[in-house]
Amino acid sequence: MKDTFGFILIFLQVLTFQGQTDQQLIRSLYDNSLTNGMSYLWLDYLSNQIGGRLSGSENAEKAVLYTKSELEKLGLDKVWLQEVMVPKWERGQPETAYFEVGKEQIKVNICALGGSVATAEGGLKAGVIEVRGMEALKKLTSQEVKGKIIFFNLPMDPRFINTFKAYGSCANQRYYGALEAGKLGAAGVIVRSLNLRQDDYPHTGAMTYGELPSGQRIPSAAISTNDADKFSRVLARNPETNFYFNMSCKQFDDVISYNVIGEITGSSKPDEIIMVGGHLDSWDLGDGAHDDGAGVVQSMEVLRLIKVSGIKPKRTIRVVLFMNEENGLRGGVKYAEEARLKNENHIVALESDSGGFSPRGFSFECSEEYFSQVNQWKALFEPYLIHHFSLGGSGADIGPLKREHTVLVGLEPDSQRYFDHHHAAIDTFDAVNKRELELGAATMVSLVYLYDKYGIQKTLLKN
Amino acid sequence: MKDTFGFILIFLQVLTFQGQTDQQLIRSLYDNSLTNGMSYLWLDYLSNQIGGRLSGSENAEKAVLYTKSELEKLGLDKVWLQEVMVPKWERGQPETAYFEVGKEQIKVNICALGGSVATAEGGLKAGVIEVRGMEALKKLTSQEVKGKIIFFNLPMDPRFINTFKAYGSCANQRYYGALEAGKLGAAGVIVRSLNLRQDDYPHTGAMTYGELPSGQRIPSAAISTNDADKFSRVLARNPETNFYFNMSCKQFDDVISYNVIGEITGSSKPDEIIMVGGHLDSWDLGDGAHDDGAGVVQSMEVLRLIKVSGIKPKRTIRVVLFMNEENGLRGGVKYAEEARLKNENHIVALESDSGGFSPRGFSFECSEEYFSQVNQWKALFEPYLIHHFSLGGSGADIGPLKREHTVLVGLEPDSQRYFDHHHAAIDTFDAVNKRELELGAATMVSLVYLYDKYGIQKTLLKN
Repeated sequence: MKDTFGFILIFLQVLTFQGQTDQQLIRSLYDNSLTNGMSYLWLDYLSNQIGGRLSGSENAEKAVLYTKSELEKLGLDKVWLQEVMVPKWERGQPETAYFEVGKEQIKVNICALGGSVATAEGGLKAGVIEVRGMEALKKLTSQEVKGKIIFFNLPMDPRFINTFKAYGSCANQRYYGALEAGKLGAAGVIVRSLNLRQDDYPHTGAMTYGELPSGQRIPSAAISTNDADKFSRVLARNPETNFYFNMSCKQFDDVISYNVIGEITGSSKPDEIIMVGGHLDSWDLGDGAHDDGAGVVQSMEVLRLIKVSGIKPKRTIRVVLFMNEENGLRGGVKYAEEARLKNENHIVALESDSGGFSPRGFSFECSEEYFSQVNQWKALFEPYLIHHFSLGGSGADIGPLKREHTVLVGLEPDSQRYFDHHHAAIDTFDAVNKRELELGAATMVSLVYLYDKYGIQKTLLKN
Repeated sequence: MKDTFGFILIFLQVLTFQGQTDQQLIRSLYDNSLTNGMSYLWLDYLSNQIGGRLSGSENAEKAVLYTKSELEKLGLDKVWLQEVMVPKWERGQPETAYFEVGKEQIKVNICALGGSVATAEGGLKAGVIEVRGMEALKKLTSQEVKGKIIFFNLPMDPRFINTFKAYGSCANQRYYGALEAGKLGAAGVIVRSLNLRQDDYPHTGAMTYGELPSGQRIPSAAISTNDADKFSRVLARNPETNFYFNMSCKQFDDVISYNVIGEITGSSKPDEIIMVGGHLDSWDLGDGAHDDGAGVVQSMEVLRLIKVSGIKPKRTIRVVLFMNEENGLRGGVKYAEEARLKNENHIVALESDSGGFSPRGFSFECSEEYFSQVNQWKALFEPYLIHHFSLGGSGADIGPLKREHTVLVGLEPDSQRYFDHHHAAIDTFDAVNKRELELGAATMVSLVYLYDKYGIQKTLLKN
């Protein structure tokens, strides 16, 4: 314990020596983001002029061209597209669904999960087995499951303070539900929306059939939380209740798309790359403002703020707008592959993909030694109410860049409202607050500024 | 510096000794608020079944009866009403306003400020002088101002991270604008809405005429930020532009209303009172969900959580739902007066009146010695992402309780979205997130629990 405090004391003296300029510079970055920021205008265009940007869609290509063109206006040293093959899946006609109470059909709100096969023409009607998550499914025999619709109804646990942990604890029913139920001979799957709130919006998201032969691939849909509860009550009264749903979604061949990349080349250490990014694609139901339009425009804003601040970065600052995070991660994988082929040295990769809400801190995916470096900078962030630096995950798109000497970082915004909007029709521009978005961008660029100035360091005073 | 760390070391050992139980207990309070909380249901009723609750209105009286009845269901030791005379002001017919461009009338969104006199029947039309805040008005002569409408158009400064500071830096134009312009002989006042966002909602709020004779009391309205900017551009092109507005608001005689109070009487130190509260009244335009329905239901939830937790408080835990914070503070003044008459000893008063957003910390209005005590508890709050303990203001209603040995505390939620809704028609239930509200209540009860267990202390280890 004493060592820790000795360490902090040394550090505070260092800060007193170097801190003044860093403090002022960071203040000017926040001021600029809050008074002349472009992030909100860019997000308005992405959300309201383009809209949902599912990989392989026309909108996704519009987003590629738009963001490339906007990056070109910033006077970066290079802007380019990186080709990547992506899956193409379409929802088709709006889904319909109901359950039967006597002769009455009670309509419910569902949506196909991304990648699901369609129902047979005319839809699928069958009896239902409700299970509380994947563990509960494992207790059933194929005889019990055969021909049934499996209703995964494990709610997100509201006791988690960070809602991403609540998500992580039950997202497997959405991703693997159809695979496991299909193996047992089920006819279809409906999954409670991964939403902590009670409402009527179904939330889509990725799923997998793994290596399942096509005959065992069964349609899989999300049902709104309100309807999940309603249906569960009805099933408790009458376990024989039938459920019907009709979906016409379709998987096409892969198509060409792009990661959008821009950079300011470093003046003295151009081979050390500090990357910021988010993902350009989104689900199709809303306009993808929080997931991940916010991360895209914040990352673009990082480079804009560096340009207008007059900072001449020593290291290369690169923005990457990844394609296909939602249903394939092809962009992230491709970017890391090419980085390896070119022997590029990413010292830091920072992703914003947790919504455009008030920033609270960063999550660092790196060794404890690298993490100790960033803790030195905490005092610089406190005036902006950025308090939470932790070791943990970072971002899906930057995950493939993981190496011993790469510090991966995720921006950590307030998480309480995120899953209200996530993958649903209400992930829309109006749910993003301009200041919260701008504060996030300013928080990101401040960290980028510090990493550019000091590099990544395992020890305290080496620069 | 070394002393500080020595202090922290001692404290951490104390925590290790006592902390386990406190940690567990606080965890159970959060769990209960997030899984079985009543705050959101109460807020739904206050907002959607009752609505805006301006002092002296029928709705305000409904809110008194409703909250008293709900408190009575909690099994507290006492629930009572405290009579208080409050002002009664009514908006009357919806306001209308326009400016003239040639023969065209361009409509704009305004609302009367609370307490304003009406325009003369048929409305007021006059030339306009735009000023950037109160300082700018002082440079004008009464000859310049006479017969004109003064347009106060100082925007909130977006560079403040805490938006309450941005509010505080220009709210005087709303509160004192009509008084100062009236003294100079102006015909009316319009004030840019105190909103950091560009939108079409006018935001009302309190104003004063001071001791101005009735002949000098001029009508005063807020104009939306979008319309303020639009009108400002038109004035820049043509300073002779006329502005028209029509308001039929009216001040009535004071009426009887009530603070609603309930308490759990302390088991061993009943004379030491720990008070939590918010204000029952709201402006009339929205339904007052954030301001301050949230604070009301969170304060009620504090007492509910203590009851269901099984804690038998040593000290008296009291909830006070104040009447008339918005346009008079009569409830807060009355409560403090009676407390003094009865020689009551409030050791702590905690108010929630900054919206029902994600809690970030507390602001303490007390001596540094008392503040040092609460800093010992910071580690207990970190799992809930409550990081920000500061010395500063607390809450308007509890301000009159200020004494040397009373620790006043304000809950500090994230402030970014607050002024989007504050005093406007969009301060509505749908803008409140259930989890954020519940986390705030849990944060409040955790502090109350600690104060009940340890009392207020100027030194570290005395209990």
